[in-house]
Amino acid sequence: MDENTLVSSLTKSWSISARTLIGVGDDCAVLRGSGSRHYSLLKTDTIVEHRHFTPATPPSLVGRKALARVLSDFAAMGGTPTHAVVTLGLPQDYSLVRLRSIYQGLTACAKKYGVDLVGGETTQNPTLLLSIAALGETRGYAPVLRSTAKARDLLFVTGTLGGSQKRHHLTFTPRLLEGKFLAENKLASAMMDLSDGLGSDLPRLCAASQLDYDLDTLNLPLRKGATRTQAYAEGEDYELLFTVPMTKVEKLLERWKFKTRLTCIGGLIHPSKRLPSQQRIPHGYDHLR
Amino acid sequence: MDENTLVSSLTKSWSISARTLIGVGDDCAVLRGSGSRHYSLLKTDTIVEHRHFTPATPPSLVGRKALARVLSDFAAMGGTPTHAVVTLGLPQDYSLVRLRSIYQGLTACAKKYGVDLVGGETTQNPTLLLSIAALGETRGYAPVLRSTAKARDLLFVTGTLGGSQKRHHLTFTPRLLEGKFLAENKLASAMMDLSDGLGSDLPRLCAASQLDYDLDTLNLPLRKGATRTQAYAEGEDYELLFTVPMTKVEKLLERWKFKTRLTCIGGLIHPSKRLPSQQRIPHGYDHLR
Repeated sequence: MDENTLVSSLTKSWSISARTLIGVGDDCAVLRGSGSRHYSLLKTDTIVEHRHFTPATPPSLVGRKALARVLSDFAAMGGTPTHAVVTLGLPQDYSLVRLRSIYQGLTACAKKYGVDLVGGETTQNPTLLLSIAALGETRGYAPVLRSTAKARDLLFVTGTLGGSQKRHHLTFTPRLLEGKFLAENKLASAMMDLSDGLGSDLPRLCAASQLDYDLDTLNLPLRKGATRTQAYAEGEDYELLFTVPMTKVEKLLERWKFKTRLTCIGGLIHPSKRLPSQQRIPHGYDHLR
Repeated sequence: MDENTLVSSLTKSWSISARTLIGVGDDCAVLRGSGSRHYSLLKTDTIVEHRHFTPATPPSLVGRKALARVLSDFAAMGGTPTHAVVTLGLPQDYSLVRLRSIYQGLTACAKKYGVDLVGGETTQNPTLLLSIAALGETRGYAPVLRSTAKARDLLFVTGTLGGSQKRHHLTFTPRLLEGKFLAENKLASAMMDLSDGLGSDLPRLCAASQLDYDLDTLNLPLRKGATRTQAYAEGEDYELLFTVPMTKVEKLLERWKFKTRLTCIGGLIHPSKRLPSQQRIPHGYDHLR
């Protein structure tokens, strides 16, 4: 069973009340905030040794990665993360020197992005595990969902893709400023972050919006030395994938003042419009494989 | 190194901003809410197979326990839990039938207590691990902290203590109604939940309030068949431990309409008032031992 199927099967009986706007299935949950244009966002994410990092990974980058991955999910909705709690699963003989450096990296990352670390939990676990749950918000504007793209919207991506396993997965910058800009100015009609590779994530965005993709595969912004296959399947790019209505593309390009590269990689189409000649891209990363 | 020392060492450089009222060190973090008497609460908790339950534990009770433990922390502040996200660490060959029952137990518990399950995360882990982060609030009144007891306040406990490992740790009722009653009516001056045993938790409440305890050990409400030592050290009672100013004790007893037993087990004293003849109670559960 793949991850998507398992998660659907486990959560299918979950129901939400009126105080929740979006539950399972987007980058963050969206909760009713205190006013008409205030939304709370909630998200959790986990990294495990031997899977998301190795014993050879510099410890401060391990801590940084644990938090930065969560921040990338807030970026994906245009939100601002505010608070986080940290769960530590600790093997019995784990080096305390290394553990302290992990926490230093985590703490430094929290300070840099203005996130208050407000609590946590410690338990024994056979492997080092760091799970971070974070709370955030959008104030004065609505978060951008995955499910709200329209047919004929153009598809954009920030930065470069592929070859992220070498170092980028430890040092990436969560695209918080770019995400907030896109949400606040209502430029993106749908958005998510690329964590499992375009080959997994683009189909998720399409499924949420009930659309299909027409990808300009020759125009993918590949990282130096990376292959197209890596961009599809390797994952951990932590870039923003978003759609823009044609009428707003000019405004987007005009106002995009970030150094972050911006590339149009295709568009979304009504599923009935797909031609048999249009290629499917290979599947990306699955957390349970 | 024991758990308290480790956690202090890892979190000592954490700092909080003005939007956080209480960070690490209480049952939940307390965040500034939307109005003058609205507070948000954030908490995370984890259970791991072979440690908090065994492969023989009925699966629906595993899921129930994972959430109910977190709810008990909201009870400990008089808060109401509203939303939760669930992290699953899944061994490669884990029974999917058992896993589905675990999630059914968790989902049923969420429905019973009005908590929206709004997201989660799945990763491989050598042992089954369930980590739940929850958000909640107090509306119209302040949460009750551990640090606000005063010398000469009386010490109370709900329910019975000890012998919880047999079944109670899987079937306990989080004291949400009792906690809210105590907070809303400003009857408790300090409060926490008993998860690691009176021998660990009472010293934590005393340390937070910079006080010492004078325990009426002969008056402990022991569970049927349980020993005093179990009440100190076994843990997982999930009852409320709270202090009440002498002037409010009559009102408390008069208004306590719950079926839940209520016992005065002593009082708090200024540390300088402790007599050499007053006994220390044995230490409770340590998550890293």
